[in-house]
Amino acid sequence: MLERISEHRCFGGWQRYYRHESQVIGLPMRFSVYVPPQAEEGPVPVLFFLAGLTCTEETFMIKAGAQRFAAEHGLMLVTPDTSPRGAGIAGEDDDWDFGSGAGFYLDATQTPWAAHYRMESYVAQELFDLIASSGEFPADRQRIGITGHSMGGHGALTLALRHPTRFRSVSAFAPIANPTHCPWGIKAFTHYLGKDHETWKQHDASELMKQAHTPFPEGILIDQGLADQFLPNQLRPDIFEAACAQSAQPLTLRRHAGYDHGYYFISTFIADHLAFHAERLGA
Amino acid sequence: MLERISEHRCFGGWQRYYRHESQVIGLPMRFSVYVPPQAEEGPVPVLFFLAGLTCTEETFMIKAGAQRFAAEHGLMLVTPDTSPRGAGIAGEDDDWDFGSGAGFYLDATQTPWAAHYRMESYVAQELFDLIASSGEFPADRQRIGITGHSMGGHGALTLALRHPTRFRSVSAFAPIANPTHCPWGIKAFTHYLGKDHETWKQHDASELMKQAHTPFPEGILIDQGLADQFLPNQLRPDIFEAACAQSAQPLTLRRHAGYDHGYYFISTFIADHLAFHAERLGA
Repeated sequence: MLERISEHRCFGGWQRYYRHESQVIGLPMRFSVYVPPQAEEGPVPVLFFLAGLTCTEETFMIKAGAQRFAAEHGLMLVTPDTSPRGAGIAGEDDDWDFGSGAGFYLDATQTPWAAHYRMESYVAQELFDLIASSGEFPADRQRIGITGHSMGGHGALTLALRHPTRFRSVSAFAPIANPTHCPWGIKAFTHYLGKDHETWKQHDASELMKQAHTPFPEGILIDQGLADQFLPNQLRPDIFEAACAQSAQPLTLRRHAGYDHGYYFISTFIADHLAFHAERLGA
Repeated sequence: MLERISEHRCFGGWQRYYRHESQVIGLPMRFSVYVPPQAEEGPVPVLFFLAGLTCTEETFMIKAGAQRFAAEHGLMLVTPDTSPRGAGIAGEDDDWDFGSGAGFYLDATQTPWAAHYRMESYVAQELFDLIASSGEFPADRQRIGITGHSMGGHGALTLALRHPTRFRSVSAFAPIANPTHCPWGIKAFTHYLGKDHETWKQHDASELMKQAHTPFPEGILIDQGLADQFLPNQLRPDIFEAACAQSAQPLTLRRHAGYDHGYYFISTFIADHLAFHAERLGA
């Protein structure tokens, strides 16, 4: 049962918010969709945006200024929430970088998280199929890309690498690019995935890239602010850059002097990311 | 004492947040400034944005997507908070449409509000002078315009009409255009200004326009969504339109089918407003 919570006219299209009973998560989940005006003519390509720690399905749609360019290119935008909500796990709301608001776009294997924290299957399968194949949305299943910010940049890169037939283009803003070696990633992976570091590597963009060979021949775009407080200890795009070089993966990694980790940074460069995906998705 | 709380690189310029001890308000006040890259070359024109009920100095800077166009035109953006905070008046935080978050950009004359609720003098004099003449900001005092949304649209129109030598250009999004005859305005004016309806008229854009003659020869721009829930009972741009006709004031009032009262509406049309002011301010 798909419930439309609200809708707002925006750049000639519609900004909509939804709630549904997720089978994968076992709880109600929320997501947002921007439908561009071109969807009145027929199916349009889609760009998933995965948000970062503490965010919701609303953050990107409010702060990034993306709809202007989605309307220009004829791209649908989809943003899920960043975790299950109300799973009833002791302590789930205590930390801003773990638990609710911090699902890390993977399927937890450890109790008590494994019952509900299954964000990879939710995004890459359940929500993907709801958007692409349910008939509820005017989406072209063959033309779907993914991007995201910080934890969501990690999600975009890892989901694209793990589901390359589903996501045809990928970019990221300030991604957690090597989570097996940063405090945020180690904390999340320990609790969600346990102590087996081989399992961790399957959810680390840099490790996945090392195992691949030119998975995205049309390139990957990453923007990174050099005044980002999390750059040296949490993000490590240099590790991902080295992995891309090792795997013959074309990467455009742009380093921007003075920009920090927030949405003022994202809004400055969002137009470039939508153009990047539109070109690759034939929008 | 002007305290810079934070700054963020944005579109080649700087998004900054400030706090200062307001002499006019008698309390600390916050405001936000976007400084475009052109300010490195010398003074730039300024556009004040006045936000609506429940908003703060942050709302417009987060949600409207204005910085992209401010950077293109070389316009500085300034947004004050929407009221005093922490005045200690019984009940000041009880209502969303009156008291804190709802200063209505006028100087209250009635106890207990008169002591602190002096938003007209704050915006049009103290903050205006701080921005334009203190040397703290690279502003060109001769080229300052004003716009706003809802209660802030009321503020923009009334402050421009009451201080035409200070504000050289004016526009509004979904303004409360005839507050003496709408529930929001009647509630606010009764508490802030008392029962004398002649005083009320001096803070009603439609009444002020009737008393004027072509106060802005270069025109006024207003955008209004036709799916705006507040249009029929609170906003009444048709009354302002009639007053402009009576006073030979050129007005472009655009009515947009399907658009509501929120920032998805504002973000869709913000580029047109910045271009409107840039042209009139020589940006």
